[in-house]
Amino acid sequence: MKTKARTDRLTTLRQRMASGTPGLCDAVWIMQPENRRYLSGFRAEDTHFPESSGSLLIDKNQLLLVTDSRYTLQAETEAPQFAIKILKQDLADGISTWVQEMGIQTLGFEQDYVTWDLHRTIQEQLQALSPAVELVPLDGLVEEMREVKDPEEIRSLEAAADLISDVLDEMVDHLRPGMTETEIAWEIEGLARERGAESLSFPPIVASGPNSALPHAVPTDRRLGRNEPVTLDLGARLNGYCSDMTRTIFLGEPTPDFRIIYKIVRQAQLAALKEVRPLVESTHLDGLARQVICEAGFGDYFGHGLGHGVGLAVHERPRVGPRNPVKLQKGTVFTVEPGIYVPGKGGVRLEEMVLVEDTGPRILTRNNRFYDF
Amino acid sequence: MKTKARTDRLTTLRQRMASGTPGLCDAVWIMQPENRRYLSGFRAEDTHFPESSGSLLIDKNQLLLVTDSRYTLQAETEAPQFAIKILKQDLADGISTWVQEMGIQTLGFEQDYVTWDLHRTIQEQLQALSPAVELVPLDGLVEEMREVKDPEEIRSLEAAADLISDVLDEMVDHLRPGMTETEIAWEIEGLARERGAESLSFPPIVASGPNSALPHAVPTDRRLGRNEPVTLDLGARLNGYCSDMTRTIFLGEPTPDFRIIYKIVRQAQLAALKEVRPLVESTHLDGLARQVICEAGFGDYFGHGLGHGVGLAVHERPRVGPRNPVKLQKGTVFTVEPGIYVPGKGGVRLEEMVLVEDTGPRILTRNNRFYDF
Repeated sequence: MKTKARTDRLTTLRQRMASGTPGLCDAVWIMQPENRRYLSGFRAEDTHFPESSGSLLIDKNQLLLVTDSRYTLQAETEAPQFAIKILKQDLADGISTWVQEMGIQTLGFEQDYVTWDLHRTIQEQLQALSPAVELVPLDGLVEEMREVKDPEEIRSLEAAADLISDVLDEMVDHLRPGMTETEIAWEIEGLARERGAESLSFPPIVASGPNSALPHAVPTDRRLGRNEPVTLDLGARLNGYCSDMTRTIFLGEPTPDFRIIYKIVRQAQLAALKEVRPLVESTHLDGLARQVICEAGFGDYFGHGLGHGVGLAVHERPRVGPRNPVKLQKGTVFTVEPGIYVPGKGGVRLEEMVLVEDTGPRILTRNNRFYDF
Repeated sequence: MKTKARTDRLTTLRQRMASGTPGLCDAVWIMQPENRRYLSGFRAEDTHFPESSGSLLIDKNQLLLVTDSRYTLQAETEAPQFAIKILKQDLADGISTWVQEMGIQTLGFEQDYVTWDLHRTIQEQLQALSPAVELVPLDGLVEEMREVKDPEEIRSLEAAADLISDVLDEMVDHLRPGMTETEIAWEIEGLARERGAESLSFPPIVASGPNSALPHAVPTDRRLGRNEPVTLDLGARLNGYCSDMTRTIFLGEPTPDFRIIYKIVRQAQLAALKEVRPLVESTHLDGLARQVICEAGFGDYFGHGLGHGVGLAVHERPRVGPRNPVKLQKGTVFTVEPGIYVPGKGGVRLEEMVLVEDTGPRILTRNNRFYDF
């Protein structure tokens, strides 16, 4: 990450801390891996939740990265703006020691990442200090900053979307009756790695025949049949940034039922896509797609929201669903993925990744092999 | 999972709830994915923390699995003893509704998994009920049950350890100067999949040359040189259960420095292994290995604990380190993995997976290609 982008992010963070929205605090304690990477450049992952590879402590003057001896060299290399502090005992001891040294009075914490138990442990130590330090919830401060992508992030998301579009293209050409879902999932991962992906953004969904009625199907040993749908939902991570896209394709000659459902889902997707612009409400977009599906009589078979933000995390803010309206900002990247799932029979989902631009939507995923029913 | 094993686990859980240790509660709310699978058989993963694929509510009479429409069919298939409840609104609404229907007064929760924010939200709803329902911390009740494996679990762990031992064997034969660490990591994943692994237990560590001094190295594009060490730390998941093993090997003729360090690490490992038996203290085992390393003058270069439990999670209770003594029970499976890491130069780590039996240790990992310096 360029130093300029990181410095801008830290400046914004400090302005928000000082302005007192949402919670007035002298400093923030950041542990959530994507937030931590966003602000510091430190790329370590926390492979086994709740084991942590590090915490940031940021006040108006200082930048500390608190980690353990496993990560010293990595932290120094990846987060050169931060002073690296190595834990000798446990995290609570370290946090309370350095918070006191920094002269912090109120410390913001990530209330939807920190567990109840860790909060309690650290709170006890902070309250025993003199003067006592108060923990205040950050209310998604950094997650909100992450909603709007800077130019460097957009380039990374474009590259990740390009990569997965190519993988999808090649995979669709390979699909043959007789292949198992797990074989296909594995081939997807291989294709993504060959193209330089760091990893997949999530385990791919490969859902054939009746399994395509499961929105969140896990690949099985089921073999693809002749004349049935297959849903592929896949994403890759490149330079830390994720992609996410879905296509349902039909092996053989599409049946009348499949054509009907597919056409509705595609119309729902297009209805939402064409209204993407700065400051449109998330619930409005969801409603546009949902209306198409409901009016066609399939409202009961679209049980999830329209989409979600994509960035360092494959699922991040904003949520784009029927509840909790938020205005979508210029520079936000999110998915538009309506679906219809008929239990026991099958389903269709179509997912694009979209960037909000002044002039409207820019679709980052590039596979245009939609059926034209 | 066999119904018998699952029924035994539920019986044990209910006995502990009734006996009031650690926290007296009428019912438990279980969300942590491995705990959930252990008690119900429901195999869904929570791919994107903190998104949840389901919660269990268990009291002395009833077994509920609360999930959403994405998982209905999977839940019915995998958790046949449980009544499946589908969330219409959010989790807090669902939990409070069903808790009230069940007539629960005190509900145990997983304090080291549930976030501060989710706890607050659910607590508010539960306290608004009449009569109010109290949330009490479970203090690792299910994690503690998971420390001792039943025969079916041991078979799964043996199979996962067998598989990764074969992968390691084949990979060591393939290693050649000029391969990159990331290529090797990817080849490891391919070998594991070919042998039927569901996934790797964690992203493999492939650390060559000076990188072997990083206990938690992430594979890089560095090419293996001639005459240098390579540490491979890898694991595979089979039937939900994980394996974990490490070897450091030397490409070319081992140097005198490498021989010295390797021999000490191996002696430290053997010192701990030979004392494994029921009721031995975890800190005693750590101390035996640490003493060998300290007496050889490398105490400052062994910065982590000796090992950790392995089961449905690759890192689980018990921790086996210099602090927090626990008595190891018959049926516990854990790793013994001392290491010496000399910054800027290189390191050695050797890791076995061990089962505590009446007669002593049974080593589950099967690769015996240790150097005999």
